[in-house]
Amino acid sequence: MSIAAEALPAPFPHRHLLGIEGLSSSEITALLDLSEEAAKRGRQVDKKRDDLRGRTLINLFFEASTRTQSSFELAGKRLGADVMNMSIPTSSIKKGETLIDTAVTLNAMRPDLLVVRHHAAGAVELLSQKVDCSVITRATAATEHPTQALLDALTIRRHKNRIEGLIVAICGDILHSRVARSNILLLNALGARVRVVAPSTLLGAAVDRLGVEVYTSMHEGLKDADIVMMLRLQRERMVSSLIPSQREYFHFYGLDYDKLARAKPDALIMHPGPMNRGVEIDSNVADDARSVIREQVEMGVAVRIAVLQALARHLPNQ
Amino acid sequence: MSIAAEALPAPFPHRHLLGIEGLSSSEITALLDLSEEAAKRGRQVDKKRDDLRGRTLINLFFEASTRTQSSFELAGKRLGADVMNMSIPTSSIKKGETLIDTAVTLNAMRPDLLVVRHHAAGAVELLSQKVDCSVITRATAATEHPTQALLDALTIRRHKNRIEGLIVAICGDILHSRVARSNILLLNALGARVRVVAPSTLLGAAVDRLGVEVYTSMHEGLKDADIVMMLRLQRERMVSSLIPSQREYFHFYGLDYDKLARAKPDALIMHPGPMNRGVEIDSNVADDARSVIREQVEMGVAVRIAVLQALARHLPNQ
Amino acid sequence: MSIAAEALPAPFPHRHLLGIEGLSSSEITALLDLSEEAAKRGRQVDKKRDDLRGRTLINLFFEASTRTQSSFELAGKRLGADVMNMSIPTSSIKKGETLIDTAVTLNAMRPDLLVVRHHAAGAVELLSQKVDCSVITRATAATEHPTQALLDALTIRRHKNRIEGLIVAICGDILHSRVARSNILLLNALGARVRVVAPSTLLGAAVDRLGVEVYTSMHEGLKDADIVMMLRLQRERMVSSLIPSQREYFHFYGLDYDKLARAKPDALIMHPGPMNRGVEIDSNVADDARSVIREQVEMGVAVRIAVLQALARHLPNQ
Repeated sequence: MSIAAEALPAPFPHRHLLGIEGLSSSEITALLDLSEEAAKRGRQVDKKRDDLRGRTLINLFFEASTRTQSSFELAGKRLGADVMNMSIPTSSIKKGETLIDTAVTLNAMRPDLLVVRHHAAGAVELLSQKVDCSVITRATAATEHPTQALLDALTIRRHKNRIEGLIVAICGDILHSRVARSNILLLNALGARVRVVAPSTLLGAAVDRLGVEVYTSMHEGLKDADIVMMLRLQRERMVSSLIPSQREYFHFYGLDYDKLARAKPDALIMHPGPMNRGVEIDSNVADDARSVIREQVEMGVAVRIAVLQALARHLPNQ
Repeated sequence: MSIAAEALPAPFPHRHLLGIEGLSSSEITALLDLSEEAAKRGRQVDKKRDDLRGRTLINLFFEASTRTQSSFELAGKRLGADVMNMSIPTSSIKKGETLIDTAVTLNAMRPDLLVVRHHAAGAVELLSQKVDCSVITRATAATEHPTQALLDALTIRRHKNRIEGLIVAICGDILHSRVARSNILLLNALGARVRVVAPSTLLGAAVDRLGVEVYTSMHEGLKDADIVMMLRLQRERMVSSLIPSQREYFHFYGLDYDKLARAKPDALIMHPGPMNRGVEIDSNVADDARSVIREQVEMGVAVRIAVLQALARHLPNQ
Repeated sequence: MSIAAEALPAPFPHRHLLGIEGLSSSEITALLDLSEEAAKRGRQVDKKRDDLRGRTLINLFFEASTRTQSSFELAGKRLGADVMNMSIPTSSIKKGETLIDTAVTLNAMRPDLLVVRHHAAGAVELLSQKVDCSVITRATAATEHPTQALLDALTIRRHKNRIEGLIVAICGDILHSRVARSNILLLNALGARVRVVAPSTLLGAAVDRLGVEVYTSMHEGLKDADIVMMLRLQRERMVSSLIPSQREYFHFYGLDYDKLARAKPDALIMHPGPMNRGVEIDSNVADDARSVIREQVEMGVAVRIAVLQALARHLPNQ
């Protein structure tokens, strides 16, 4: 019995982690508990373990994503895996057929774990059906970013000792966010009260079906919030004529001390990074004592270690 | 005595692997036997060995080649080597002198194994003369791709239990193929009957000297073939006015069930990848039960492990 | 007590290595002694040690620098560290604030050692103040390249058994050299007599304050030199109208046998690479028996191993 198996209090029955959707609250909690252990270990010198010794993790790129990719690379190495970064230019993937050929090629290299980011909805799911190994979504543009939601929840739980009943305001560019959807699913599953706050042009239609309270005013949306989670304004994904002016955006939706005053006095300030200081968040607020933005990155490595450990339980032993 | 040395039934006396040319049939067979062992091990969980522990493998790029490069990276890591990918833009290599300077620089880092792909004929050979370590050609545009030929032979042998006497039809873009030449050399050495089938514009002059039967008709060339090996149509290497229309190419040279019917009923279908489905091969034929295209990729890792093990025997012990 | 600690004859009290400036002669000598041991070990098969097992080294790029980066990657791996290469496009770093955010992000991943190259003066120092780990400057355009100076000194000491009292002529493009400044500081600290030889347009103002003898004539500057250290002509950093013609430059400042004859008969010929043969150095002179250019590269790995070992002593044990 591997150490990962012992450390996991409740069984995590899935072979892949493609999203938060479909996970039960106890499965999420099991991952968070395992992440907490990894987080504690992360401060020790000998962070290195052997859970994945002899295992191969392929970190697959269709688009670059330095931060999350590095975090998985580090997590895999700390667990003793052989990590191979592999870049596949999107231009070479023109049809679903070819994506499958890529999957089959990878599979034939007999990796144990495959971490994938792909911009097309459904692509990672399709991949997961064609390979023998465990597949983890690093992020997909249109849908989910499950490890970000887990690390955000872990960070919250470390400070508030619970998720249930907390008022969480997710603010800003909901429309282009891969983070928002996974966070809403996870926080809902664990019983938080989730609000989204955004200009109507950046809300997107999807939030209607996710069971959240919708606000277009920061002053209303932040009222009594326990958690203020800001999102990056993703100008690079917007039609240029629709990009808001940074000054105007900051005025209405940037988190400054004035707007923050509406939240609870001990509200946590969060941001998935990288930040546009002065656009969606005031620079001083980002560095405020209530900000846990640095801790989020640290929890990112811990969560990815935990996810790899949890999925490693499903790898065949012989 | 290392495990690699014990496992190798016949001695492999070469310090470098620059091509199939110059290898005897018993040396080729020794590499195939060692590859077969690696292939069997590849399905085990603990694929990891220590043959190359403490050794340094530099995977050198002059041009990108994701698939073969990844395969060598994985092979090196599974044998416990420290693998370093190093990219040298071709633009910075202007003269033979500078290529030698690069070789000397690499050599001074004291690698044990150097895996190189270079587009210029002779470049890898020149490199091999300037360094102390073992050199392996990953592929060279104009000449050889030895590990591809070995993995193709291994795949054939696993299904047919022999190479000798088999009729192998290599079909398509012979002119631009780095694969065809190495395959012809290897299959001839082991006693197969090799045919090449291509439009006259894609045959190239070199095949005349290689002792193969030449066909320009698929219906004639595939008759009674045991192996149908399709090649990728490399449009990117063609003068644009000479690129055949895909529809016409497929009609005359694409492998479909009609043409395949001319081969033996149990003929193997092979392709070195990546495939242009609908151009040189019908999509259903590519996925047919007789297709061993996926297995070729898997054998690619096994062959590269075997080659590294075989060359490791020549590394100095002190 | 780690092996590194035992092997280090004199204590190296610094947590970072940002430059040669501020190091005492005994600290430099301690690093050179440790490097000498690594250099001897480098020829053994089992070059691998465990000094950094369980440690994470992040090799951070703001600009590409293949040679030094590879050298640190190899050094880290030979000491058993998990090495992660991480590329951050300069374009995404627009303000000091964002550089700090990057530092904080990296720090949250809990690396033990961070190797950084950044073109902006002060950037690496700023980074070092924001992180918990040890920081090593790989090179900074405007200021220092400490490991290059150490490897040059090690190479000299191996041949001349001393640095003190030697006449060292550093020749060529002083203005754009990251190497010259660190070398001058180090060689001065160890008691060498340092000369710089360059056309007045490539001298730069900084040399005035560094306590060197300045020459604009190679014939005068090389007279009785023990060491002739040539620099790369960095045309890519020059305003195009000011780039000297290669023929003219070679005539006045390129090292040929005629100019070399002014130096001591057993003078060492050095170059940090990559060389422009026929521009700053005659091709035959570069390959002369007195040239130690290849050995410099080899010493590069040894010096980086020694620096990592020395800084590893300051990493917390629990």
